[in-house]
Amino acid sequence: MNVEDDTALKVLREALDTPDDVIFTDEISRDAASLDNLKLSFLPDAVLRPQEEKDIAEILKIANRFHIPVTVRGAGSATTGSATPVKAGWVIDMAHWNQVHIDAVSGMAYVQPGATTQSIRDAAEKEGWCYPPDPSSVKYCTIGGNIACNAGGMHGAKYGVTRDYVMAMEGFLPTGEWVRWGANLKKFSAGYNLRDLWIGSEGTLGIITGAVLKLIKKPETERTFLASFKDDQTALQAVKSILSARLVPAVMEFLDQQTVDCTLKSGFELPLQTKGVPAILLIELDGHPAVVEGETQQLKELLKPLAEDFRVSESDEEKELLWKIRRSCSKAMFQLGTNKLNEDVVVPLEAQIPLIEFTLQLKEETGLATPTFGHAADGNFHVHVMYNRDDPEQLKIAEAAVMKIMKKVVSLGGAISGEHGIGLAKTPFLRVQHQQAEINAMQAIKKALDPKGILNPVKIFTLFPVWEHTPDTRKMPWDH
Amino acid sequence: MNVEDDTALKVLREALDTPDDVIFTDEISRDAASLDNLKLSFLPDAVLRPQEEKDIAEILKIANRFHIPVTVRGAGSATTGSATPVKAGWVIDMAHWNQVHIDAVSGMAYVQPGATTQSIRDAAEKEGWCYPPDPSSVKYCTIGGNIACNAGGMHGAKYGVTRDYVMAMEGFLPTGEWVRWGANLKKFSAGYNLRDLWIGSEGTLGIITGAVLKLIKKPETERTFLASFKDDQTALQAVKSILSARLVPAVMEFLDQQTVDCTLKSGFELPLQTKGVPAILLIELDGHPAVVEGETQQLKELLKPLAEDFRVSESDEEKELLWKIRRSCSKAMFQLGTNKLNEDVVVPLEAQIPLIEFTLQLKEETGLATPTFGHAADGNFHVHVMYNRDDPEQLKIAEAAVMKIMKKVVSLGGAISGEHGIGLAKTPFLRVQHQQAEINAMQAIKKALDPKGILNPVKIFTLFPVWEHTPDTRKMPWDH
Repeated sequence: MNVEDDTALKVLREALDTPDDVIFTDEISRDAASLDNLKLSFLPDAVLRPQEEKDIAEILKIANRFHIPVTVRGAGSATTGSATPVKAGWVIDMAHWNQVHIDAVSGMAYVQPGATTQSIRDAAEKEGWCYPPDPSSVKYCTIGGNIACNAGGMHGAKYGVTRDYVMAMEGFLPTGEWVRWGANLKKFSAGYNLRDLWIGSEGTLGIITGAVLKLIKKPETERTFLASFKDDQTALQAVKSILSARLVPAVMEFLDQQTVDCTLKSGFELPLQTKGVPAILLIELDGHPAVVEGETQQLKELLKPLAEDFRVSESDEEKELLWKIRRSCSKAMFQLGTNKLNEDVVVPLEAQIPLIEFTLQLKEETGLATPTFGHAADGNFHVHVMYNRDDPEQLKIAEAAVMKIMKKVVSLGGAISGEHGIGLAKTPFLRVQHQQAEINAMQAIKKALDPKGILNPVKIFTLFPVWEHTPDTRKMPWDH
Repeated sequence: MNVEDDTALKVLREALDTPDDVIFTDEISRDAASLDNLKLSFLPDAVLRPQEEKDIAEILKIANRFHIPVTVRGAGSATTGSATPVKAGWVIDMAHWNQVHIDAVSGMAYVQPGATTQSIRDAAEKEGWCYPPDPSSVKYCTIGGNIACNAGGMHGAKYGVTRDYVMAMEGFLPTGEWVRWGANLKKFSAGYNLRDLWIGSEGTLGIITGAVLKLIKKPETERTFLASFKDDQTALQAVKSILSARLVPAVMEFLDQQTVDCTLKSGFELPLQTKGVPAILLIELDGHPAVVEGETQQLKELLKPLAEDFRVSESDEEKELLWKIRRSCSKAMFQLGTNKLNEDVVVPLEAQIPLIEFTLQLKEETGLATPTFGHAADGNFHVHVMYNRDDPEQLKIAEAAVMKIMKKVVSLGGAISGEHGIGLAKTPFLRVQHQQAEINAMQAIKKALDPKGILNPVKIFTLFPVWEHTPDTRKMPWDH
């Protein structure tokens, strides 16, 4: 901590009503706020836990005056490092702003940014409503973080992502001015839409203190299919048949043969008949019983000519059995390498087979396993590269492989991130996705709203050499 | 036209490959491009009809060099004046960029900005898909304009508005640089979301040359209800009962007693039993036949204790009969005054009854009729003030009444525009909706992306004295 920062903290202490409840400079607090799920640790100078809105206004005004970097965090489950205080400075910890209120008449949730996504889903369900987005970190991640990176989940293709549910937000501009974007209304066309600009801007354009979320009616019933296919291409051919028949499954998870192979090797028994190691689709239909019944018949007809075998759940127990492989596969991948790179790319429907063929080619070229699974209904695949971080040669190969994946994805008309955002980890690829004119426009907006550049610096735009940093090995709450 | 503009046109003529196909300075072209549906005419210096993308780049570069205001137009059906070339300069007419291509496998429409919304709906339907947004000008309005003002329509509460269907856009920054925002993907989380910033920015931040729209499965069946209520409040009580029961009608149009009264006086016969002049709800359920059947029973139960009478369509002819009052009411209002102000406000569900009571109070206070109808499922009401423009006293009263409505709407937590945008006509109310910090942030973005301020100047932010201008009386294609 340099003297200037020290002065800043002194000034902040004087400006706050209850500074001892807000300012924490102890080692434990700073250490806990030093990293997120990217696991690169940068120690902040102080952790600030605002007690009321005006605390945030004061923090931002003083941070601007003294040029202190400010990083906001919720649970810290971001996978790309967007909550990492890479330039030290102050971390604003919003985890204790976790209130949820459900308006059961209008079907809306009023939430604070530190509320976990699961707590919102539970509160909505209690009142007969449903909040669909379900990132895999749903039990831990906070809605503030979900909004910051426009989080998705397995139900995105049918039910949309976080953006589709945020009706309004309030909070602070980087300059410390309070603003509100949108309202608890389904239509709003009055002035520029900064609501949707804030969503997905990874905490670089403002600090969210509250949001209004739209809720929907909970689907009455669901039915789960597990289907095996002789190879990846045939499974993805089935995806195409299903979507072009205008079926919109609530879930359609694809597991490629490499993923299935390591899951089987980890001792998992597949409840289906197969000859070799198959590719898998886990499909869930949901809605009105009559709709699900009709779609079940339609889906069976579509699967028959393509699948090796498939099975439809007739009970909750059977449903759990069919889901088991999807729940096991992420962990099972460590059969294939000690370290895992998880790239959440998206490709258009017609590019799904070319993408999977590219991962197979990459496996041949690099000798590294490239197991891939993901949300086939919206083309959001998690392509993994498995390697051993202690082997400098493998590290180099893995780094090059990821760049190749990103270039291929963009050449296929896809996106380098579907639901994780850019943070630090994907900064090397931003220029693969976007032209210079697009990046210039984004940075012009950043400069217009945050002239001193205090809010979450480095993120998204500055090339960060993620490979040169050694990840922290400590376990976080979601690490089992 | 001043000499400087003349020089600019000369430079443009030299820069274009086929200047005679692009530049039009004849009186007829300029006159036709001088106004939109706000009907305030401002003659531009030239009308430009770009033949290819690079023409637009050239136009913008030269407009920046010579500080020429540039206004983009499609059909000119904007009601707020957002396509009016209020500072003269150049109008870019995109109406002939009207190609539509449907990708029937992926369920997406690739459209040019001049395609009418109806042409997109028709093309989608031909391939078994559906594009739901249906502003009342659907036959005339273009998708470029729909995106520019985030147009809605009657199906917004169930099926969303234009924003919910735009997956990607490409076009030009005000500086003439080509950009693309989003992709033909359902998930995209890579960098700032300028796609949704452009949507609703009324042509002030960029020029759209193409868009990718998401399509949905067409609802299999629909059923129409027409219900009468003893008064406005009871009808809106029914809206609340329906929505809080988690029914989401495809259409739920409210017609207040004043609207119904003038429609009856214009000779319309209501196909329902009523004692006095009722308020009306026109409700349409749609979807799978079993869902519609279940919801029909549920809706009947909800209406029974509240409605005076109601009727459910059993045939297409009967459906048309029930729709007739909604289709007639807008014209019938001219029974109540020679001029009509149509304010497309939005209020939260709990504020619907207070809003309608306010319009009744305003009617008492001003002596002007305030018939109101609109999309009750999303709270987007068209509040009208009927007056005689030739009577300076009435004009003044009407002007003050509209400001009162806007202040009331905002105090109720609502929005001054749900689907029309701000344009020129609503600039007096922008500061009612937004705080100074919010407007400053919007204007900072405008300045960052359009440093010379050439694109659609005055719109949204500059207070425009709409009442001091006399509307043009010429008929436009949608005036019957």
